[in-house]
Amino acid sequence: MKLATLKDGSRDGQLLVVSRDLKTAAIADGIAASMQRALDDWAFIAPQLQLLYERLNAGKASAAFEFDTQKCMAPLPRAYQWADGSAYVNHVELVRKARNADMPDSFWHDPLMYQGGSDDFIGPNDDIELQSEEWGLDFESEIAVITGDVPMGCKVQHAAQHIRLLMLVNDVSLRNLIPAELAKGFGFFQSKPATSFSPVAVTPDELGDSWKDGKVHLAVRSSWNAVLVGQPNAGVDMVFSFPQLITHLCKTRNARAGTIIGSGTVSNKDASKGFSCIAEKRALEMIADGAASTAFMQFGDKIRIEMLDKNGKSIFGAIEQSVVEYHQK
Amino acid sequence: MKLATLKDGSRDGQLLVVSRDLKTAAIADGIAASMQRALDDWAFIAPQLQLLYERLNAGKASAAFEFDTQKCMAPLPRAYQWADGSAYVNHVELVRKARNADMPDSFWHDPLMYQGGSDDFIGPNDDIELQSEEWGLDFESEIAVITGDVPMGCKVQHAAQHIRLLMLVNDVSLRNLIPAELAKGFGFFQSKPATSFSPVAVTPDELGDSWKDGKVHLAVRSSWNAVLVGQPNAGVDMVFSFPQLITHLCKTRNARAGTIIGSGTVSNKDASKGFSCIAEKRALEMIADGAASTAFMQFGDKIRIEMLDKNGKSIFGAIEQSVVEYHQK
Repeated sequence: MKLATLKDGSRDGQLLVVSRDLKTAAIADGIAASMQRALDDWAFIAPQLQLLYERLNAGKASAAFEFDTQKCMAPLPRAYQWADGSAYVNHVELVRKARNADMPDSFWHDPLMYQGGSDDFIGPNDDIELQSEEWGLDFESEIAVITGDVPMGCKVQHAAQHIRLLMLVNDVSLRNLIPAELAKGFGFFQSKPATSFSPVAVTPDELGDSWKDGKVHLAVRSSWNAVLVGQPNAGVDMVFSFPQLITHLCKTRNARAGTIIGSGTVSNKDASKGFSCIAEKRALEMIADGAASTAFMQFGDKIRIEMLDKNGKSIFGAIEQSVVEYHQK
Repeated sequence: MKLATLKDGSRDGQLLVVSRDLKTAAIADGIAASMQRALDDWAFIAPQLQLLYERLNAGKASAAFEFDTQKCMAPLPRAYQWADGSAYVNHVELVRKARNADMPDSFWHDPLMYQGGSDDFIGPNDDIELQSEEWGLDFESEIAVITGDVPMGCKVQHAAQHIRLLMLVNDVSLRNLIPAELAKGFGFFQSKPATSFSPVAVTPDELGDSWKDGKVHLAVRSSWNAVLVGQPNAGVDMVFSFPQLITHLCKTRNARAGTIIGSGTVSNKDASKGFSCIAEKRALEMIADGAASTAFMQFGDKIRIEMLDKNGKSIFGAIEQSVVEYHQK
């Protein structure tokens, strides 16, 4: 099934069930007020949402209305955990190579993962508010899963069963703040502003046989100012599957329902597939020409991130955002 | 006023108002079901909680009962953000000196802060479940604030008004996992298991003139296996005040209601004040003797963290936990 969260002026929004074709939606009235509520009691709530989903797809849901992604918050507008992996190691190797830094061999078998801020996600069509173009704003196109409760020490063979939903992510980064911040040794903080997510989160069964071995075997399409710049296949060159990322997260602690885990920027070794973040494009330029010629995003720039199924239909709806200058309220 | 969260089998527990002397409590019936609910609508809810607090202190609250910290969850059992600063730079310098690493001068004017996991906090008397003593479990005694909504770009002079509550923290760390994890460059993750908090969170006015310049001018008392090992004054050697830490957090993003910001391990330059984490004790041993002789916490070890007011009364109640071996459920 497909779920979304409607802007209703509240912090958590209103849970929506969305039809498979993304054309209609219905409020999950009397089932669960919010996405987090559904995740908190998934075994009880999900079957009820599924029934509504089936009625909606059959055109039989009462009070169905036209689905409008402009009115969507992130599926989870705020979450108790957002942990982002870096499973496409090719991306990491490329970016490091551009600055003449070797990549430790351990990166191929020990996942990189950072803890992100999760209190203030933004919706799929919300503006990216930026104070200074000098900070080097970059998009990063990723896939994420939302989990149920996962016990500490969960083994990889038990991890997949805890995956409830999948989404697309724009893991917005401020590239020019990263070097100084990482040099301090405590990871990302100011260099990671609010993250945005696709309009819709879907259960794994919606992906059919494109969901296999804990990976999504479809292309993530990134268009920057209406030009398609990347379409790497997310099932190719993903060194750590989502179950492996879950296992990494839970080595020393539990993960509780509503935990979001990201794949990291999707990247293929085949450079003809383009790029899912500007940093990668710049890395290739530096390796080829000794200098990067592509600038990061400017005020007014637009980014669109989408995934199509084998029939060319959008699965999650599109993240489509503009960069605007931030004026403090 | 003083607030706590009662274990009731739910994920968020039941909000309690606790008397100033920590002897009685009353359920915030009909006011707010949970701490997060209160924080989400603080301007409306807090005055109602305050009235109940006054009735409770006067012995006039109906249905008051004996307050038992054993039945407490963390004041916020799960939060949308947990960001921990490192404001006692003396602590950072000492730990680095022990391993012959210089500390960048920037650490004195640019705060260190890491994003922590916030989906699964543990209560003040809950066991610390540990899989392996080899991981080097350490306590870290800290103070934290809980904020309301803070806008991106908030100036330091406007930050203090967003502080709603204060708590004590045990920022449990797995010391032997830290070096390899920080070497990867993405900050702490597996080295920071579930964090625990004091039974009670208090509004700043409860601290009287001990709350000044955005700092708490009282000692944080840490007792390890019933021996008082540290009592540094949290108002001394705190290089960055809580308003400064808030400003750091909000440089590139909003912080939403219920954000928890920690001070970092409380540490005084005056070594006679003892230590608030074992790593600091070991650092002093390494500097003096070339080797650390004090081991990290073992199964069965106990840690107690508390703060007394000028009259010797406990402000937050005590964090008092045992380390136990984890058996996967």
